[in-house]
Amino acid sequence: MEGESTPQAMRILYHLPLSPFSRKVRLALAEKRIPFDLRIERIWERREEFLTINPACTVPVLQDVNGLVVTESYAICEYLDEAYPDMPLLGRTLAERAEVRRLVGWFDDKFNIEVTRNLLEEKQMKRLLGRGNPDAGAIRAGYANLRSHLEYLGWLAETRAWLAGPNLSLADLAAAAHLSALDYMGDVDWSMSEAAKDWYARMKSRPSFRPLLAERVTGTSPPAHYADLDF
Amino acid sequence: MEGESTPQAMRILYHLPLSPFSRKVRLALAEKRIPFDLRIERIWERREEFLTINPACTVPVLQDVNGLVVTESYAICEYLDEAYPDMPLLGRTLAERAEVRRLVGWFDDKFNIEVTRNLLEEKQMKRLLGRGNPDAGAIRAGYANLRSHLEYLGWLAETRAWLAGPNLSLADLAAAAHLSALDYMGDVDWSMSEAAKDWYARMKSRPSFRPLLAERVTGTSPPAHYADLDF
Repeated sequence: MEGESTPQAMRILYHLPLSPFSRKVRLALAEKRIPFDLRIERIWERREEFLTINPACTVPVLQDVNGLVVTESYAICEYLDEAYPDMPLLGRTLAERAEVRRLVGWFDDKFNIEVTRNLLEEKQMKRLLGRGNPDAGAIRAGYANLRSHLEYLGWLAETRAWLAGPNLSLADLAAAAHLSALDYMGDVDWSMSEAAKDWYARMKSRPSFRPLLAERVTGTSPPAHYADLDF
Repeated sequence: MEGESTPQAMRILYHLPLSPFSRKVRLALAEKRIPFDLRIERIWERREEFLTINPACTVPVLQDVNGLVVTESYAICEYLDEAYPDMPLLGRTLAERAEVRRLVGWFDDKFNIEVTRNLLEEKQMKRLLGRGNPDAGAIRAGYANLRSHLEYLGWLAETRAWLAGPNLSLADLAAAAHLSALDYMGDVDWSMSEAAKDWYARMKSRPSFRPLLAERVTGTSPPAHYADLDF
């Protein structure tokens, strides 16, 4: 950013386009109608200025208009709901909040380890970082796990208005963030669960989703249905 | 639990003794002086009644006196600070809370992947689950990463009263939870950082830590210094 003069009042999200954790925060900001600028951060370059604001060298990182830097998608989302309480994304009662956070953990921990890392990291990150060929076993496991996760997601979507209950919440955004990144890679067979597909169609048609659907990553084109609202 | 009559008013934490995430919640409950009963949950047995309260089949799970079940250590800790605000563990201002959560993420994500999983899971969980011998490469990486993490922790402890700032917070509990489990296995060479060791001595001397230091796991004895406050 050398040579650039950054106005004090700019809100910046450092991100990577296919990072599900970055996508979750982008959706949360957009649902709350909080304007922000996006900066791609190539974390593997370990840029020195970036390391000073986030020694863990991960994305997303939010630099808010007040200058506060918030790191870790979990911390950013909790911060956003505290600092910008309009359009609450964590639920109202203690029970609602426990259920939203349980499902955020489900997608960001369990789904991430069982599906996202096996598919997205094997295929995309290894190529990007020149770390060799994807591991066939990991990819097989990723697809098998994705099937059970879509079933569970479909069951939630069938029994509730949104994944965690009557209102759209961070649980929907976390799930959609992972699935949209995988969908970009052509990894999601939506015919496996009609209910999951219906829920995802509702997510895709939200204005918050538009920038994600319009985005393209160099070297990888999404399948035709990726940006199609009637897929 | 068949045949047992569980009084409505019992608060139960399902846990495993060496699980850092369970230890973090135990410390949080104890710091807040919230009484609770411990139940060991052998998650690898996939007990049916447990799966109905936590389909992810992970520990810790908190069943509160009001009957509310909270799953995922992140959700439990956020819940505890909302439901029992005395002795706040997440900080007061937005900036303090961002820093506490950043460091909780640091230890529960980064430290967990780079150190805890390489050492504790390789040595203890593989043996417990009969999954073969520990991987020598993973253990080497775990020890190497532990050294840099202790340096970072020591730097934090030198520049602040507690890891995240002027007050004890969930960041200290998360860090101490991981390190105490590793220390039980004899994996921590405290001579690597005097400042980290001083901080850990302060943590160990807190009343909340006593039950952890008194606990013994079948088949594994801790080194002599484990429960020693002047180690």
